Amino acid sequence: MKRIGVLTSGGDSPGMNAAIRSAVRYALNHDIEAMGIFRGYAGLLNEDMKLFGHRSVSNIINRGGTILKTARCPEFMTEEGQKRAVDVIKKNKIDGMILIGGDGTYRGAITLSRKWNIPSIGVPGTIDNDINGTDSTIGSDTAVNTALDAIDKIRDTATSMERIFVVEVMGRDSGFIAMQVGMGGGVEDILVPERKFNLLDMCHDIVEGNVRGKISWIIVVAEGAGKAADIAKKITETTSLETRVVVVGHVQRGGSPTARDRILGTVLGSAAVELLIKGQTGKAVGVISNELNVVELEDAIKPKPTKINQLYELMRMLT
Amino acid sequence: MKRIGVLTSGGDSPGMNAAIRSAVRYALNHDIEAMGIFRGYAGLLNEDMKLFGHRSVSNIINRGGTILKTARCPEFMTEEGQKRAVDVIKKNKIDGMILIGGDGTYRGAITLSRKWNIPSIGVPGTIDNDINGTDSTIGSDTAVNTALDAIDKIRDTATSMERIFVVEVMGRDSGFIAMQVGMGGGVEDILVPERKFNLLDMCHDIVEGNVRGKISWIIVVAEGAGKAADIAKKITETTSLETRVVVVGHVQRGGSPTARDRILGTVLGSAAVELLIKGQTGKAVGVISNELNVVELEDAIKPKPTKINQLYELMRMLT
Amino acid sequence: MKRIGVLTSGGDSPGMNAAIRSAVRYALNHDIEAMGIFRGYAGLLNEDMKLFGHRSVSNIINRGGTILKTARCPEFMTEEGQKRAVDVIKKNKIDGMILIGGDGTYRGAITLSRKWNIPSIGVPGTIDNDINGTDSTIGSDTAVNTALDAIDKIRDTATSMERIFVVEVMGRDSGFIAMQVGMGGGVEDILVPERKFNLLDMCHDIVEGNVRGKISWIIVVAEGAGKAADIAKKITETTSLETRVVVVGHVQRGGSPTARDRILGTVLGSAAVELLIKGQTGKAVGVISNELNVVELEDAIKPKPTKINQLYELMRMLT
Amino acid sequence: MKRIGVLTSGGDSPGMNAAIRSAVRYALNHDIEAMGIFRGYAGLLNEDMKLFGHRSVSNIINRGGTILKTARCPEFMTEEGQKRAVDVIKKNKIDGMILIGGDGTYRGAITLSRKWNIPSIGVPGTIDNDINGTDSTIGSDTAVNTALDAIDKIRDTATSMERIFVVEVMGRDSGFIAMQVGMGGGVEDILVPERKFNLLDMCHDIVEGNVRGKISWIIVVAEGAGKAADIAKKITETTSLETRVVVVGHVQRGGSPTARDRILGTVLGSAAVELLIKGQTGKAVGVISNELNVVELEDAIKPKPTKINQLYELMRMLT
Repeated sequence: MKRIGVLTSGGDSPGMNAAIRSAVRYALNHDIEAMGIFRGYAGLLNEDMKLFGHRSVSNIINRGGTILKTARCPEFMTEEGQKRAVDVIKKNKIDGMILIGGDGTYRGAITLSRKWNIPSIGVPGTIDNDINGTDSTIGSDTAVNTALDAIDKIRDTATSMERIFVVEVMGRDSGFIAMQVGMGGGVEDILVPERKFNLLDMCHDIVEGNVRGKISWIIVVAEGAGKAADIAKKITETTSLETRVVVVGHVQRGGSPTARDRILGTVLGSAAVELLIKGQTGKAVGVISNELNVVELEDAIKPKPTKINQLYELMRMLT
Repeated sequence: MKRIGVLTSGGDSPGMNAAIRSAVRYALNHDIEAMGIFRGYAGLLNEDMKLFGHRSVSNIINRGGTILKTARCPEFMTEEGQKRAVDVIKKNKIDGMILIGGDGTYRGAITLSRKWNIPSIGVPGTIDNDINGTDSTIGSDTAVNTALDAIDKIRDTATSMERIFVVEVMGRDSGFIAMQVGMGGGVEDILVPERKFNLLDMCHDIVEGNVRGKISWIIVVAEGAGKAADIAKKITETTSLETRVVVVGHVQRGGSPTARDRILGTVLGSAAVELLIKGQTGKAVGVISNELNVVELEDAIKPKPTKINQLYELMRMLT
Repeated sequence: MKRIGVLTSGGDSPGMNAAIRSAVRYALNHDIEAMGIFRGYAGLLNEDMKLFGHRSVSNIINRGGTILKTARCPEFMTEEGQKRAVDVIKKNKIDGMILIGGDGTYRGAITLSRKWNIPSIGVPGTIDNDINGTDSTIGSDTAVNTALDAIDKIRDTATSMERIFVVEVMGRDSGFIAMQVGMGGGVEDILVPERKFNLLDMCHDIVEGNVRGKISWIIVVAEGAGKAADIAKKITETTSLETRVVVVGHVQRGGSPTARDRILGTVLGSAAVELLIKGQTGKAVGVISNELNVVELEDAIKPKPTKINQLYELMRMLT
Repeated sequence: MKRIGVLTSGGDSPGMNAAIRSAVRYALNHDIEAMGIFRGYAGLLNEDMKLFGHRSVSNIINRGGTILKTARCPEFMTEEGQKRAVDVIKKNKIDGMILIGGDGTYRGAITLSRKWNIPSIGVPGTIDNDINGTDSTIGSDTAVNTALDAIDKIRDTATSMERIFVVEVMGRDSGFIAMQVGMGGGVEDILVPERKFNLLDMCHDIVEGNVRGKISWIIVVAEGAGKAADIAKKITETTSLETRVVVVGHVQRGGSPTARDRILGTVLGSAAVELLIKGQTGKAVGVISNELNVVELEDAIKPKPTKINQLYELMRMLT
């Protein structure tokens, strides 16, 4: 292992920079060169890269986003695109790849390692926390805290104005963020894609609560469970009560990462390099109960079991 | 002056609680009773009120929202509603009123003081900063900082993903928040209701920038200047570039108030009581260049001159 | 189980309120009364308590500190004090106790359960993360993020002024906070009680770095490893370089809890009640890899293994 | 005016980067070159400088500290040092200087402009807000909000532990920060250098409050009014009550600037360049009631009138 390549792909997530910094400096410390590849797989195809030194990653551990940037890359889905990527890797004498991202990124890593024999290690960087083999993915803790901060602020005005707020948070396939901020925010209800819900029952609860004097409600919706605007409209139609809509949106991707995401990124970035040094490939790194954990990439992207129903019951009981 | 009434009305704004605390304790300290009136003018009509003690306003100076809550009150627009309000005021032996809110609140205060001879003082509590006679209204500093925090976070992801973001902030008639966060966030463009803009010119700039390699843009839109979703759609139609939409929304109303809003609320709440003690009525309090300033309520709600065009030119020059 | 008692003891930690809310409401939901006991074991001895309803714990999930307050209680170390506590528990018909705190609190819980046969469950509330049987204690995530925020701010001025900063964080026996913020802050060195360090070596590094042009340093010190002021003084004496001292202090105990601490408090507060319902005693609850975990109180307070040396090596390698 | 020089000197303050960005880009936009001078007057003497382009100041508006760094410079106090500085200015064809900092910086600007005829404009960058001709100096709003955040967090633990906290904030000659955070934090007492205080009276209040059941106190001390540790010790000696000490320290200098400090920096940086273009010298820029204000440098550093006593009376009345 004389030179590794590092890229970030898919949606950016806070803490990716900590992982980049850690991978680059760990490599340099082991006399391995580190090639920063820009714009994910697209940059790989386009040879959009440069060698990084120690100072290339200075002052980034506390920054949101990714200095390597990300982009989509449909070409990499094609045989031809993959060939080009492999040519670029070989031409640039890259002996192993560190790929930081979510399940799409991991699929690319599987292709690189299994089909094209490029030593490749995946690092879980995604706010959705939907990767197996790790308690938490890099960025999810920050995203949850950012969305929770929004909920806290909305609570102030919901209580003052005595209104129903429907708050949409990120999560197309995953109710992780919604469930976490709903639990942490002490909200009245949570809608997630993993769990069926009956809007009429909810409206019934609201009206009943209203009669008892409970006038402000916050309902958190994962984007995969429906659009906040639609749900708010239906609530108003059914209950005749005014609703307000907040879509927290891309704010959740940004911001200075939390301690947890910085440390996770730091631990996993270096661990990925160490695996390459040891001759491993096709693996994903993670942390389980504060211990490093390594799984096959294929296992990492299997559906991650969640305890949505159990948490939902608890949340409702405590409201 | 043996008993005053205090209410908050209109949209809530951070720092209202500091004003309530200050008015109540200043009154008590001068041997004046303080009646907390809930839900604005609606609560006044419905006699929804109670006497406040020193501890009624403990631990609220750092809280967003308003412990007195707010509500709309169409009845107060009618002669009959006003009569009822005046009856309630007299029945409860309230000798003077402190009304905390924006221009709607001030219109009510004008009615109370001029038409019904109820001593009334207005305190400027609104995030829009559109009240005359004060450099800043209570809540506007917090709202601007909250929206700016969102812009900072969006910048992280906009830079990483290289996209165009259209960010809608509050301000139906006022571009104040948009202009402040645009200036402070170093954004690429700002659309406000006070200033005509040409979307085609903006698209032209974007395409031209794109050619030069400038790929991430943040455009801030005050809600009064258009919907972010519509503007984003037009940009995409015209430039064929992908856009993302963020609506910061009601998050801007909440949150722990900034030092500035807490101090402004504290200074103005007590000043309003002092004016009532001195026998004044129909006035609004404010702070100009760190000095207390008193104007007629009618002057306070005249259109507030802004330097939107001048600031816009500066912002564009520095982008 | 008809009535439980809940108390917080030792240093307060952010998220204790989430645990209180959860325990109280979970109990009420299972038709068990909840007695809130104020000021820890001292309040227990003094019968300083009241029955809590559903609304007694409203709007506290996002608040730092503990609404039950805490206090020291030397009397409870004596046979006589313990007898009094048990009398109060019996007199008030409390069938089981939930004790939220750190190792001192757990020692009291051991006494209550083993010696006096009072069903008792411990909930880990301490910023030091030094309790076994749980990946993380309630409050430690918030404390680490608060201290990290201080480090980030100090970095700004350390870089601008080109000075050496010695920053003392909490941790009398534990380097947990120091190691976490040091890793997350990308600092130059970390001193913890668990690891010997040689100040002369550090001074040598500083001087050597200085020659190479590295002029700003941040050194994090756990309070158990020495006083920041003393260390700074020695650095100045040895290197002739100016130093600045920051003691982050009690700020680390306060603040709105992070999502993680709120959820951990929520999960563990209810789990503790559930254990009492099931007739268990002398146990401590925790979360290991997102799963509930129950251990004997005696095991919970054994020295917690840390990976200080391993993390330290990694930190130094990446600096 | 073909080339200007920009430097920051004295303690760094948040928002200095916004002023640098604004000055540099405003100059470039008017076809004037901008020389960034590093490490204040020391860098000027040592010719430590480089020409800045548009991108030299990208992505700094939201960063604390100063990219130009600061340093002390005793040599500039000497005739010889000044001569050297003037030689460097002339050699580098700098036609005018923008000097960002506090009163020490302004004294240097007076020397440059009056004695050596170098066109010089001062921009008020200091957290102490002790410069005349401006409602607020760049950085003071951020510093106050940072210190207030610390007070809010301490309040959580002070209330939970029922202790007396003595909190030291910055301000060697000025009680500005102490008074602002004390007012905004709703603290029990404030000690500032501008106002005599009687520690025995305060202890008397504390004991009296203690009898009435008021057990938690926060006392804010400006560093110029005494060391928190000494004051806490005397309180304990006099009252026998336990005290805790927090020194907020250099954290107050750092952090991402508030909207207000970014906008103030932006407005004043460009205004300073505009004054140079118009041929002015020896002036300081500021903002009074949202309008640009220009004063002589000598007037800017006269003692700034404060309303400490008036604010103190109000604070005490509302506690």
